Amino acid sequence: MNGAEMMIRTATQAGVEVCFANPGTTEMPLVAALDATTGMRAVLGVFEGVCTGAADGYGRMTGRPALTLLHLGPGFANGIANLHNARRARTPVVNLIGDQASWHLAADAPLTSDIASLARPVGWVHEVKGAHEVGDATAKAIAASMGPPGQVATLIVPADAQWNEAQAPPAVMDRPELPALDEGRIGNLAEAIRGADRVVVLLGANGLCEAGLRAAYRLAASGCAEVMIETFSARIERGSGLPDFPRLPYFPEQASEALAGTTHLVLAGALSPVAFFGYPDGESRLCPAGANEHCLALPGEDIAGNLDALADRLGADAHPELANAPRPEPAEGPLNPASLGRTLAALQPEGAILVDEAATTGTAYAPFAGAALPHTTLGLTGGAIGQGLPCATGAAIACPDRPVIAFQADGSGLYTLQALWTQAREQLDVTTVICANRSYRILQVELARAGIAEPGPKAQSLTDLRNPEISWTHAAQAFGVPGTRVETAEAFADAFRHAQSEPGPHLIEALL
Amino acid sequence: MNGAEMMIRTATQAGVEVCFANPGTTEMPLVAALDATTGMRAVLGVFEGVCTGAADGYGRMTGRPALTLLHLGPGFANGIANLHNARRARTPVVNLIGDQASWHLAADAPLTSDIASLARPVGWVHEVKGAHEVGDATAKAIAASMGPPGQVATLIVPADAQWNEAQAPPAVMDRPELPALDEGRIGNLAEAIRGADRVVVLLGANGLCEAGLRAAYRLAASGCAEVMIETFSARIERGSGLPDFPRLPYFPEQASEALAGTTHLVLAGALSPVAFFGYPDGESRLCPAGANEHCLALPGEDIAGNLDALADRLGADAHPELANAPRPEPAEGPLNPASLGRTLAALQPEGAILVDEAATTGTAYAPFAGAALPHTTLGLTGGAIGQGLPCATGAAIACPDRPVIAFQADGSGLYTLQALWTQAREQLDVTTVICANRSYRILQVELARAGIAEPGPKAQSLTDLRNPEISWTHAAQAFGVPGTRVETAEAFADAFRHAQSEPGPHLIEALL
Repeated sequence: MNGAEMMIRTATQAGVEVCFANPGTTEMPLVAALDATTGMRAVLGVFEGVCTGAADGYGRMTGRPALTLLHLGPGFANGIANLHNARRARTPVVNLIGDQASWHLAADAPLTSDIASLARPVGWVHEVKGAHEVGDATAKAIAASMGPPGQVATLIVPADAQWNEAQAPPAVMDRPELPALDEGRIGNLAEAIRGADRVVVLLGANGLCEAGLRAAYRLAASGCAEVMIETFSARIERGSGLPDFPRLPYFPEQASEALAGTTHLVLAGALSPVAFFGYPDGESRLCPAGANEHCLALPGEDIAGNLDALADRLGADAHPELANAPRPEPAEGPLNPASLGRTLAALQPEGAILVDEAATTGTAYAPFAGAALPHTTLGLTGGAIGQGLPCATGAAIACPDRPVIAFQADGSGLYTLQALWTQAREQLDVTTVICANRSYRILQVELARAGIAEPGPKAQSLTDLRNPEISWTHAAQAFGVPGTRVETAEAFADAFRHAQSEPGPHLIEALL
Repeated sequence: MNGAEMMIRTATQAGVEVCFANPGTTEMPLVAALDATTGMRAVLGVFEGVCTGAADGYGRMTGRPALTLLHLGPGFANGIANLHNARRARTPVVNLIGDQASWHLAADAPLTSDIASLARPVGWVHEVKGAHEVGDATAKAIAASMGPPGQVATLIVPADAQWNEAQAPPAVMDRPELPALDEGRIGNLAEAIRGADRVVVLLGANGLCEAGLRAAYRLAASGCAEVMIETFSARIERGSGLPDFPRLPYFPEQASEALAGTTHLVLAGALSPVAFFGYPDGESRLCPAGANEHCLALPGEDIAGNLDALADRLGADAHPELANAPRPEPAEGPLNPASLGRTLAALQPEGAILVDEAATTGTAYAPFAGAALPHTTLGLTGGAIGQGLPCATGAAIACPDRPVIAFQADGSGLYTLQALWTQAREQLDVTTVICANRSYRILQVELARAGIAEPGPKAQSLTDLRNPEISWTHAAQAFGVPGTRVETAEAFADAFRHAQSEPGPHLIEALL
């Protein structure tokens, strides 16, 4: 068995089932190995950012890594932005990157470059030394990706390590067990916050599962603490029947205001909150000066278990009643962020996976989402735009029985619109809603925040996507996805219902 | 004056005139500085690979750097693939990347990453320490980019270095002078190769200008040496009235055959030839064992002057006559690579800039190009696909009076199709010819070379772009470019003539 087959077999034996691929010449043995072995699905992306974003969406939904198969340094580079998002989401992803044959590296052929230097900023990296270690290296990469917490793991595999004979089977990798709850520490925390002025639990990471939300709600309902959600979350369960908490605002002055007066900030999966960007005279840290910051549980730990134990210590009701807002009604009249958001929340089906890269338009949807039917939301964790369409693609591969909604800002969507083709090829049940405000609206806001009240013509041109207007319906058609343009809430509702009634991908361009 | 204005002013004073931009929040002061200063044109790309590829095309045509303005690590990462091509083309490019404010870096906010690690594989990097050094750093980056030879230079500029007050003006950077010709070395080389069995001059880099080609032709016409062109060249002048030389073939066994029997290989701008990829039982170096390899001139040196001096020493005729092949006639009948290539060569206008990312289809065009009207060809130097449409965009910005032809493979074109939007916005005179064979044809060839005579279904699916077929005419319409699909040589000729007769961008999808 050659090295490439050993790698794919090791991966399938570890439970890896999907490879999002855009290979080249230095990956040909791995391509052949996909056919020579059984159990690995190959999904082609026609741009690498599609592959990596799909692996991110897949990993968020399954908790297991997908492979990506990418071509040398430049091919990998095209996937880095979405790997940055995966890194911040702590998603397990395993990248296989072919490299020049080991004996050919010194020749510095045109496509040769320092791949490891490109890969280190997104996570764990191993440069495979030869076919003798490909099994071990693959097993270690998969284990590294799984964490907990999850991470991006990259194997750089010279072509000769793929085509040469591999002898050694992989080492057996045991998954580390989560540490038991530290009752002493939880007891001390309970004493510290009992009866304190303003206790805020900041919930994040895998704490945003149903069990984590319910455990946090015990604290909130009993008055032990307020609960807030980290600003950008990898995955959260939302909708009727689930607790709904406010999110820590994006802009630092709003976030500071939301946290003002906090005497105890309890981190449950969330990191210590910091500003997304620094501004002149701004600050990095958002926790109020003088507040005590406590870490209840780190990302990847048993956040729900820790919260439940804390709630027990504080004597919180084990089964508090939920007061759910009524499901929103579809809006009428012209489309704007609010009418679009309300109508989407009203119509999104039960069990939907909503990938939220709606940027400024998404803020108007957020207040309605908690009362929508139960669903899962995947967010933009790393701020690297172009995540939504690929992530939706991967989520749909992971969960073929669940409808997927890509709620997508137009400017961001342009980065990786090639994902539509993979959706069409695989006939994925994805409804893409393009929020067509024809601008980088967030940058227009940021220009104003930077004190540029009246941007000059160049600044205006760099934040404006008219001239020419982009036709998303034509883009969808180009890639084999039926597309519709709508200008009213009623037309959006009709188009959305139609998309839900048919299998396969659809795109709705919502003119705002 | 703040740091951002100091940077843009320093650049314009050094003769930099264009900034290909896709900025974000950490670049807002630089965006404002584009309006606050005069002389810098701002061109928006809706994906960073468009910006970097355009800067490459611009730099190849002008010999001066354009700026790119990119957002943090992930934004820069999206531009790396085309910077890899620029690196291999030795194109001067200056990247400005905003980073988090220096005091905010330690907070590790979501968009923070190790930008320098991403940038080092493509060239010169400097991390700006503060507003006090932005002028100097900008001047040094521009000087570094100019070489010679040219290179990619990257400045990582924290937001506070942009918005804080800059005091020191930039240091004055003198451009280094090229060394004088080394007559002794040239004399020794002349003695070594005079009357030798098989002398091959491998011409590359800036030796492919008209003067370099004519100087090399003196050696060829006088029988002193054969001349070959490096396999992938950044820029070459071609067409009637210019010498036309064979190109060193792509596949290593063909290249080795082409060089078999060579006793002296003279490198004139070209590097010592190596295989593009290593294959089992293959070799890295293509120069025959036992042959003497001589370096006449390095990239960036005075290659034409060195060749002329060598020709003088060897007594070669100073003005040999050229025997030009007749201009090809347009083909008739069904479109295939040969009929498309012939018709394109027949119709391309004088002075055209042809950006060749036609991959396998391009090999059928190559034999006709030498007899086309005089033109400039820009090639894929680094093998990072997705170069053509952006590079054509930048070439058109650089040379508004010259028609630009993007001769583009379909699979490669998908990587950066967003360039069409910039062509439409700027109303650039670019005719894109999509070679629609609906496959990664080169990978089908490489699969066969890897011994996989009958690829399995997964390998087939990863090299096939049908199911669904991509409609390039719809993609063009999506971005505001008129598009036509053609299936015969005559229809292609009509569409091409029509595109040439109208200003602004056009796209022709040539079904092969």
